[in-house]
Amino acid sequence: MPTGAQALLRTLVDAGVTVCFTNPGTSEMHFVAALDSVPEMRAVLALFEGVATGAADGYARMTGRPAATLLHLGPGLGNGLANLHNARRARVPVVNIVGDHATYHVQYDAQLQSDIETVARNVSPGWVRTSTSAEALPTDLAEAVAAASGPPGQVATLIVPADLSWAEGVQPAVPVAPATPPLADGAAIEAARSALLGKKSALLLGGSALHGPALRAAGRIAAATGATLFAEVFPRRIERGAGVPPVERIAYFAELASVQLAGLKHLVLVDAPAPVSFFAYPGKKSYLVPEGCMIHRLTTDGQDVAGTLEALAEVVVTRETARAAPKSKQPVSIPTLPKGRLTAETACRTVAALLPEGAIVSDEANTSGVSFAGASAGAPPHDVLTLTGGAIGQGLPVAVGAAIACPDRPVVALEADGSALYTIQSLWTMARERLDVTVVIFNNRSYGILDVELQRVGAQASGQKAQAQLDLADPPVDFVAVSRGLGVPAVLATTTQELATALRNAFAEPGPHLVEVAVPPVFSGRRLKALPMVLGSLESLPGPLAKALKRRIAP
Amino acid sequence: MPTGAQALLRTLVDAGVTVCFTNPGTSEMHFVAALDSVPEMRAVLALFEGVATGAADGYARMTGRPAATLLHLGPGLGNGLANLHNARRARVPVVNIVGDHATYHVQYDAQLQSDIETVARNVSPGWVRTSTSAEALPTDLAEAVAAASGPPGQVATLIVPADLSWAEGVQPAVPVAPATPPLADGAAIEAARSALLGKKSALLLGGSALHGPALRAAGRIAAATGATLFAEVFPRRIERGAGVPPVERIAYFAELASVQLAGLKHLVLVDAPAPVSFFAYPGKKSYLVPEGCMIHRLTTDGQDVAGTLEALAEVVVTRETARAAPKSKQPVSIPTLPKGRLTAETACRTVAALLPEGAIVSDEANTSGVSFAGASAGAPPHDVLTLTGGAIGQGLPVAVGAAIACPDRPVVALEADGSALYTIQSLWTMARERLDVTVVIFNNRSYGILDVELQRVGAQASGQKAQAQLDLADPPVDFVAVSRGLGVPAVLATTTQELATALRNAFAEPGPHLVEVAVPPVFSGRRLKALPMVLGSLESLPGPLAKALKRRIAP
Repeated sequence: MPTGAQALLRTLVDAGVTVCFTNPGTSEMHFVAALDSVPEMRAVLALFEGVATGAADGYARMTGRPAATLLHLGPGLGNGLANLHNARRARVPVVNIVGDHATYHVQYDAQLQSDIETVARNVSPGWVRTSTSAEALPTDLAEAVAAASGPPGQVATLIVPADLSWAEGVQPAVPVAPATPPLADGAAIEAARSALLGKKSALLLGGSALHGPALRAAGRIAAATGATLFAEVFPRRIERGAGVPPVERIAYFAELASVQLAGLKHLVLVDAPAPVSFFAYPGKKSYLVPEGCMIHRLTTDGQDVAGTLEALAEVVVTRETARAAPKSKQPVSIPTLPKGRLTAETACRTVAALLPEGAIVSDEANTSGVSFAGASAGAPPHDVLTLTGGAIGQGLPVAVGAAIACPDRPVVALEADGSALYTIQSLWTMARERLDVTVVIFNNRSYGILDVELQRVGAQASGQKAQAQLDLADPPVDFVAVSRGLGVPAVLATTTQELATALRNAFAEPGPHLVEVAVPPVFSGRRLKALPMVLGSLESLPGPLAKALKRRIAP
Repeated sequence: MPTGAQALLRTLVDAGVTVCFTNPGTSEMHFVAALDSVPEMRAVLALFEGVATGAADGYARMTGRPAATLLHLGPGLGNGLANLHNARRARVPVVNIVGDHATYHVQYDAQLQSDIETVARNVSPGWVRTSTSAEALPTDLAEAVAAASGPPGQVATLIVPADLSWAEGVQPAVPVAPATPPLADGAAIEAARSALLGKKSALLLGGSALHGPALRAAGRIAAATGATLFAEVFPRRIERGAGVPPVERIAYFAELASVQLAGLKHLVLVDAPAPVSFFAYPGKKSYLVPEGCMIHRLTTDGQDVAGTLEALAEVVVTRETARAAPKSKQPVSIPTLPKGRLTAETACRTVAALLPEGAIVSDEANTSGVSFAGASAGAPPHDVLTLTGGAIGQGLPVAVGAAIACPDRPVVALEADGSALYTIQSLWTMARERLDVTVVIFNNRSYGILDVELQRVGAQASGQKAQAQLDLADPPVDFVAVSRGLGVPAVLATTTQELATALRNAFAEPGPHLVEVAVPPVFSGRRLKALPMVLGSLESLPGPLAKALKRRIAP
């Protein structure tokens, strides 16, 4: 006589969803009670829902399959919303199971009652459902898993009234068989081929095109055609390092992005939207595709991205083009360990110098991390997971999920102090699950990016009260204390040597570690004041000068 | 040439909103830049939006006036949603200002773009607006403040596109003059009078009826009529202690509430809904008003609650009834300081014994706090702020807001370990603003309430995996370390004597302090196993026996 909750769990497992990131309450107690009857399901407890949803995101980025989350009514979903936003923007599959009051209890409008569907629509515009009967519950869930899985992936939210969970005699549903995604049609492939054979062409890779066979096919295409390979500004997963086709990420600063894209005649979009500015700024462009550049979309939603790239590679890589092609693999280049003063730049270089092979880097270091990409370009092959939707507080939860997805790979979380504090509870789950995560906190005691943005939006008169809003120095956060308090061993590094030692220890020892790195802000003082001017002038500068400047600012 | 943001701030201040709890991003930078031009506005930075929204709630509960919040697009609002839910349920006024992309940037669907209004509707069903022009912005805001202020209070959300903030030449709006709320009509007052003069009558006070002149009028009414005074289960603010009319709070456990309400013939609702069970449980009642009990609503939304209670008092308190009336004030009764083992019960008694006069108690101690109400009934007068909407993570943020609202009163936050960890970032704002808050963390290393609920929902088979979902012992959280890491001095108390010393020090010294109290779960072992049975039997027990049991379980 399985309960609704047991049928739910069995259906999840049968559909290949074997991890659930949880923060349950009373309305989810039958789901919790059912866990022991479905041994294949791993339930990972989080102290805060944003950890659970971000972990589900990180898990799916690495496995390509959704994890489930278990959330408590509207407020629980609300707490998980920011990281679900990030998952939605990157089309990462996630299945939310949100408990609700029993169907007959709703009429009484008890304290925790709210309109859960309104919240869910923000992150699950394509699939939100409130189950209305115990019989339909497992089928609803099977459909949720199929909808989440895509392609393209999405966040699907199933709202489960408590009485449906405790109903008895409920049978699991048969999983929905995944459809085989089709290739792009021949015309789109031919249009891309013809565009790429022209001069000043580029591929802009996003979504699923930035790792594995898709990326390798893109590398062959670029080599054969001479097209540049760009990556979207915040990819969900980008494979890189020695031996991997090199890809140039579009810069966060729109002014830099304009320099990167200047002069392009053809831009072939592969699972990525046309590049736009992250924010709008007074008097600046939002749409970053240069005038006169033609946009070509290789695939549409639901098509097989990797297969289509391989088909495209087949038509552009001829014997001739292959012979003429430059090397399409990043050469090995490991930075020497820096000595001397610890700055964001020397810290990034130290991490890059010691990066273990196969590492998964969850990068939310923001301003402090700008030089990591350059420093680690030729490091041993690794994956980087980035802030896809711009909702900070993502890096540590994503690291949790990636570590559960890939227990044999080391995970490195590069974290800004400000961002880390939104979901600092992640550390506890890392300790509880003995996850092999090395957290590097760049503590510059400020919202460094806002210092920059305050200037960029042209908000000149920055008085004391305004400045205080960006300042995290009073009181300073002692991340070592916070980390130890949450169960993760931690050390403070104040020199490059101390950082290297701490990283070596962390990488050598299983389980989570945190290293707090005391660094000055990347952009401060004269450098900060000059930045908007420099950035502003980039767009109008001649190519080589602009590129030189670009390298200096965001190497 | 004021900018839109400057006009916004000026309008807020002119409308009496002089505190803004903030966690800004790029789209709010002009608001931040404008802060220095409006010196009357105090901007209080939070590291996480749930702290900002909960603080706005706590501030308004104590002042009766809304504070503003400053949040960053959909994800920022999402992070603040749980505590806005609590404010909505308790009709506490809050004005959310949510920054959005510039109007012309929306078409590009940049990374942080989402449908903010869908999220906002969950907590602001009565007032959500996206400003569409800089000219309309200040007027929109003035209307938001008026809508939030009520009565009844509500959460009003104004979404502000960035280009409206940076527009120039925008004039502030004149505040909307508050309407004088009318008294209830004579028929309602007469119906209540007649109901209260019958036997087995009670007043159920909620919302604004539980402090100040309203509560005192209710006390006179109860004394004159012999009616019982009940409070809703989770009041937003309840004044209590020596000299204050005593009120019996409805119990969280529906089985206990049924015992409290048993035999009632008339229940007069004063700014409170009819009592219902917090959650539904298999085979148990959701609606708690006993059969045969008539419900009378004294006021409707928008009426003057305190004035109506005073009018009612005038008609029931005659010379005769005044003479016959029992005392309507709680006598002084301060518990002696307990000695010996530190348990949740002895810890509550210690806090009650040392509670400073005029304290504001933010109570989110859940299971560990059940005995505080009994222990502190005759303590010096104080206010208690409770978990109005059931969304945990409220206690510390509400303490922040209360401390800013009432800088001359000591604030005591009674916190459960599990609940504290949702919004632990509150500690940093307490340190930054030098708030006089004493945080007592009852660390029982578990989600104690869920241990109870797992049994109450009838989820019997609680295996190892299920039990692990309620367990916070692996790793144990060291709140002293976390607190120090976030800038608040902290100590661990392992005996009643250590707790007394720590509290005395904390109350004597200005600024925030945290005391971690290591306690065993209130309900565990045999006590936990027996609880559902005991609770289940309460409804069918004869009155005196049930009452005796009730006192034993939740004194």
